[in-house]
Amino acid sequence: MQVPAFHGNVSFNAHHSPMGAFFTFTCGNFGTRGGLGLEAPRPGNQDIYIGVKDGDRYSAHPMKCLPFYEGADKNAQPILPDMAPENFVPEMSTEAPKKKRSEVLAYTAAQLQRYYAWATDRWVTPEYEFAIYTPFDSIPDPQSATSNQMRAALIPAVTAELVVDNRKGTQTKTGFFALRFSDPGVRLIDSGLSKGRVGFAFRDDMGVAAELVEVKTDGTRLGSDETGVYPFTFMRWAPNEGLADADNPSHMLGSCPGIGFEVPAGKMYVLRLAFGCFVNRIVTTRIEGRYFYTRYFASLTDVLNEALAYIRFAKVDCNTLNDKLLISNLNPDQQFLLAHATRSYYGATQLLDVAGQPYWVVNEGEYCMLNTLDLSVDHVFWENRFNPWLLKNLLENFVRYYSYHDQVKDPKTGELKPGGISFCHDQGIFNNFSPLGRSSYELTNLKGCFSHMTQEQLCNWSIIAASYMAYNNDTEWLLQNKHIIEACAQSMLNRSIGPDGKPTGIMTLDSSRCGNGWEITTYDSLDESLGQARNNLYLAVKCWATYLGLYRLFKQAGNNTGAEQMLQAARLNANNIAAAMRPEGFLPAVFEKDNHGYHSRILPAIEALSYAIYWSAAPNKVDGSDWLALAEFKPLVEALKKHTVTLLSDKEKRNHFADGGLKLSSTSKNTWASKVAIFEHVARELYNLDENGATRTAAAATGVGGWEKSDAAHTKWQVEGKSAYWACSDQIIEGVAMGSKYYPRIVTTMLWFKGL
Amino acid sequence: MQVPAFHGNVSFNAHHSPMGAFFTFTCGNFGTRGGLGLEAPRPGNQDIYIGVKDGDRYSAHPMKCLPFYEGADKNAQPILPDMAPENFVPEMSTEAPKKKRSEVLAYTAAQLQRYYAWATDRWVTPEYEFAIYTPFDSIPDPQSATSNQMRAALIPAVTAELVVDNRKGTQTKTGFFALRFSDPGVRLIDSGLSKGRVGFAFRDDMGVAAELVEVKTDGTRLGSDETGVYPFTFMRWAPNEGLADADNPSHMLGSCPGIGFEVPAGKMYVLRLAFGCFVNRIVTTRIEGRYFYTRYFASLTDVLNEALAYIRFAKVDCNTLNDKLLISNLNPDQQFLLAHATRSYYGATQLLDVAGQPYWVVNEGEYCMLNTLDLSVDHVFWENRFNPWLLKNLLENFVRYYSYHDQVKDPKTGELKPGGISFCHDQGIFNNFSPLGRSSYELTNLKGCFSHMTQEQLCNWSIIAASYMAYNNDTEWLLQNKHIIEACAQSMLNRSIGPDGKPTGIMTLDSSRCGNGWEITTYDSLDESLGQARNNLYLAVKCWATYLGLYRLFKQAGNNTGAEQMLQAARLNANNIAAAMRPEGFLPAVFEKDNHGYHSRILPAIEALSYAIYWSAAPNKVDGSDWLALAEFKPLVEALKKHTVTLLSDKEKRNHFADGGLKLSSTSKNTWASKVAIFEHVARELYNLDENGATRTAAAATGVGGWEKSDAAHTKWQVEGKSAYWACSDQIIEGVAMGSKYYPRIVTTMLWFKGL
Repeated sequence: MQVPAFHGNVSFNAHHSPMGAFFTFTCGNFGTRGGLGLEAPRPGNQDIYIGVKDGDRYSAHPMKCLPFYEGADKNAQPILPDMAPENFVPEMSTEAPKKKRSEVLAYTAAQLQRYYAWATDRWVTPEYEFAIYTPFDSIPDPQSATSNQMRAALIPAVTAELVVDNRKGTQTKTGFFALRFSDPGVRLIDSGLSKGRVGFAFRDDMGVAAELVEVKTDGTRLGSDETGVYPFTFMRWAPNEGLADADNPSHMLGSCPGIGFEVPAGKMYVLRLAFGCFVNRIVTTRIEGRYFYTRYFASLTDVLNEALAYIRFAKVDCNTLNDKLLISNLNPDQQFLLAHATRSYYGATQLLDVAGQPYWVVNEGEYCMLNTLDLSVDHVFWENRFNPWLLKNLLENFVRYYSYHDQVKDPKTGELKPGGISFCHDQGIFNNFSPLGRSSYELTNLKGCFSHMTQEQLCNWSIIAASYMAYNNDTEWLLQNKHIIEACAQSMLNRSIGPDGKPTGIMTLDSSRCGNGWEITTYDSLDESLGQARNNLYLAVKCWATYLGLYRLFKQAGNNTGAEQMLQAARLNANNIAAAMRPEGFLPAVFEKDNHGYHSRILPAIEALSYAIYWSAAPNKVDGSDWLALAEFKPLVEALKKHTVTLLSDKEKRNHFADGGLKLSSTSKNTWASKVAIFEHVARELYNLDENGATRTAAAATGVGGWEKSDAAHTKWQVEGKSAYWACSDQIIEGVAMGSKYYPRIVTTMLWFKGL
Repeated sequence: MQVPAFHGNVSFNAHHSPMGAFFTFTCGNFGTRGGLGLEAPRPGNQDIYIGVKDGDRYSAHPMKCLPFYEGADKNAQPILPDMAPENFVPEMSTEAPKKKRSEVLAYTAAQLQRYYAWATDRWVTPEYEFAIYTPFDSIPDPQSATSNQMRAALIPAVTAELVVDNRKGTQTKTGFFALRFSDPGVRLIDSGLSKGRVGFAFRDDMGVAAELVEVKTDGTRLGSDETGVYPFTFMRWAPNEGLADADNPSHMLGSCPGIGFEVPAGKMYVLRLAFGCFVNRIVTTRIEGRYFYTRYFASLTDVLNEALAYIRFAKVDCNTLNDKLLISNLNPDQQFLLAHATRSYYGATQLLDVAGQPYWVVNEGEYCMLNTLDLSVDHVFWENRFNPWLLKNLLENFVRYYSYHDQVKDPKTGELKPGGISFCHDQGIFNNFSPLGRSSYELTNLKGCFSHMTQEQLCNWSIIAASYMAYNNDTEWLLQNKHIIEACAQSMLNRSIGPDGKPTGIMTLDSSRCGNGWEITTYDSLDESLGQARNNLYLAVKCWATYLGLYRLFKQAGNNTGAEQMLQAARLNANNIAAAMRPEGFLPAVFEKDNHGYHSRILPAIEALSYAIYWSAAPNKVDGSDWLALAEFKPLVEALKKHTVTLLSDKEKRNHFADGGLKLSSTSKNTWASKVAIFEHVARELYNLDENGATRTAAAATGVGGWEKSDAAHTKWQVEGKSAYWACSDQIIEGVAMGSKYYPRIVTTMLWFKGL
């Protein structure tokens, strides 16, 4: 299917990443650097020169580039380092006068189209095309997969094509791909690549390789061995220097390696490129892990050779994925948000080999916290489709290394009471695993950001477990983890004890780990409306979903008593929530009347209903688990609907930004793209609402319509202004990415997608 | 012996490095960053906070620091990153009001003394002292040394002490050492350190550990086990945040780890610190090597524990070294230049394990070229005193991997003639070894910077070989390399063929590797006076020294015919040089009258006489090798003296800068600190001249006097203005380091030193 040209601002960065390698080739934002990034909390630091010039490699015609280098938006020429002879030896007079160098020019947005699909990012200029392919699929469980399957899934590389069609031309053109590095350590690769292939690397860690293919009019493709035409490398301090220097195209002191090829008039050539990495050492501390792909690949050149060998198949896979999204009923903004999020997700993934066993890590974007559990729960919708075995892996690693038992404390007296099991907020930061049983994030004696999230992480682990068991028949796992599930249920109850000593269904007690502070929720950078955990509406509904999840698990395990306990807790919970309805028609964000949050109107009240929806659609049916349809929960479901309608239809637009984007809390300017996507899903799927709180028209209801204005705003938040550099961000303040940048979680948009 | 306070500007960076680890702790320049640097072409990127505050760790008194952080010269407060809650959650109102934080203040130069000795760099403030210890000594040959000897020599760590004497105080004081990192990946070390020790690390690569010692009035020292007083760690985003936070002194998200200790009134405590690294993987490409120290150390904590265990011995070694320099006859500027160069040298050294064998590398400062051979020859005076086996290692690796055979070409006709063996300019760059037989630096078809240095590198290898054999009785090596030495001799002759087809003793023919260009000398960034190799005065004298070196080697090997050939070539050489004397009383830098360089007056004309002096003082005497005293070379030696006197006594001061510093060439503003040191040595030792070309007074001649003004200027070049950041630099343009920064070669100042 034809991918339409991207309808918004095309100057935005995107990750282009393999799966599980914590590696990216990031590009797309005009006038800023990007390129190869390894274990990096931000885009790479290379100027990217991709383009064509008229004439052979030595011609002085301008190099017409994609605008992916510093100053490209101002048509600045490449900056030469101090050690370039122009700067280094100002006095030398015997040097021959410099040849006129090609100017380096960049296309403007008006001269470009960008075709941004689920797995292909293609740029079309008047003279050439450049497309990057990032196929994704399930990662097979190594216990049952062949080495070849693992190589195909875990190859730490992505591929691209630079297409120069000179069939109508009258003179030779020269294509090129070059990266100007800011850090020292680049080299040309002169051994290890298959015949006809050339490339360059940064030390032994990452690199680029290429081969040249001629495309005949009948579509036949001929390799260099058949045509006798090979790509060539160069490396000086600037792309125009290396490409055109007949005497010394390459200098090891250079910082700008590149690959070039000449296309005679009448010919069409494609430069196939592979961007890969190979880190063959222990990369994490405390829990020492190496990349799992090092079990299947021998070296950087092995990776690059393999990527080039399979580029044709990768393109087919990409087209299949692209089509699936294009034929879905998502509107172009929704399609963009899912495609953009997918890339950002894989750029953060890291499959480790820890003591011979796989260990799955998703890094938290620019913060690089390992497996932040309140992100993991949002990633469930994605992982459960592709890699349920990695969900299991995550659940087990949290139990084994990052669970703990606490007490809970009376908020008035401070008296300690039995608590229970919970899980850490995360497992460490920047490749350093945190002390076992401790997160890198949580601190004591705080009442805001960086406090503990004991209740919420308990919910999160339980919800992931329920999701895993809803979609997978893993009775062995269930049996082995029965005691954990029972402990979770008990811990849930112990945290909800009311003044009368009985469970209330709602969190009332903070963890002893908080010291003199109290627990917060995942919404750590919002105000009290979502920050405080105790008596919090959002978290209360999440507890309701947790009871449902544990109910399902108990039922699946044949523990009817446990299930009944959960149902009873859910009843209390639902009654308490519904009873909090304010006369204005909304539920207070915090149930405590003297709390600032009592006046806040929050969209995420309904976030956790997403799990109920998700499980009701699951293949593994559990008797009595369709609580959304149960009469006894109707008051809760209806109260939340009323709440949602009130907020969306608010005349004062307290939950909308001026651009139509959704505002999670009426009392905060801060909103999160990933969470907005979940909210939108529930409001649409469960309540059939549009973005203004009205019941959707029949036409809109057949698809995922009725949210066009907010979807358009949410797209702009990612691709315009300062946000555009960050290749998908979560925390948006008045339309600009201000936190949680370069972030994986926006993959919650997968909820919208029914295909695959 | 008492080290006097440094007499110049104290705000300059210095390397503090172990031997062979390519690792440094750099600090000393006010208001800029430094700290831990691994394989780094410039100072580290950490703000360094070392100091004391009144009161216990929680007090709000100001932290009085050494001025080693960005903004310290302006008393700026530490910058907090975006993710610090102050920036991250602007809206949170429930957070308790922040405690008043200590201000971070920096001492000014007037409040400090710096005691900069050969192996100790000590800072004294009104409240505390901080001293860094960098002992150095021979690295034993691992073939004959014990593991313990190797551990002692190769430990990749240096140590320091922070001394807080509160014996006269009336309240507790708190001392601290903290580093604020700019790159993510820091962690506290919570396992592996011996009891009572604490520390922090950057991933698994480098770190800091400390232990606390009480000093009793009688000098007794008690460890933490005896006193029960332990140092503690902290880690938040700023030093004043972590040190004083009672609830959460440490946060894994923090970027500023530190170590603190409280000193009660009446007590004196010393915080012993170790700065170490441990890189346990292949670090170089092509010729794949790991650090040799990984044969003897198991982990980063093994390194840090060992460093702390032996700090007392290290201090003794340092004092011994300090004394040797202090009792030498060098003036304070000369002492400084040698001490400063020593540190910079070791910061660039890298002892690798390549396929089980040691491989010695000195990196070329900010350029990080590996074993630049025209630096190696200047390092001979140092290495031959400490590690002759590493000179042998260098010679062998050049023969094995980086020698080549060329042809030479007629400068007029371009006709190719037999050339011979020579050696590459270097062995690669930034841990990437260059293709075998090729340097990273040299290019073809050039007539200036980056052209080949075939003739000069042939001289350099030969001179190193002669130096090695002059000071070591390694007849086995000589026997094994007889054919190389013969090849060098033949290659020397082939490059000096005149129009009549006979050797001239002076380089007349360029290497075929130059293509249509010509050879240059090591003085690549100077003008033609030193840039062009052919008919170059400086290189001609170096060839004379090379003939002498080869003569010695032939004699030692019993090859009298070869020796005689060299003597004959030297005669031709000497006659030709002496005949070039200009009526103004100087030798032209380039013998060609139509060359710009014909008018240049260059000090390095006499540089290569340093080898003749060096060998004449060597223990291994060789018959007839005291050419400086031979009647037939008297005209050369006298011509060079006349030349030197003319230049130094020039009324127009064309070879002096305004500040009295030496100017290598009358036609270039560029001058090199390392080369100036060699020139000064020869002019003083051989000709007994002072800096103005006069014969030294009897008083000056007993020591190394007569050069006070230039020595003072050369010191200023290193410690003032922009140069001060670069921890020793070579290329100085009008007093400012403009190239070859962070450089090892200034260790040529070792020539001045007669002790050890």
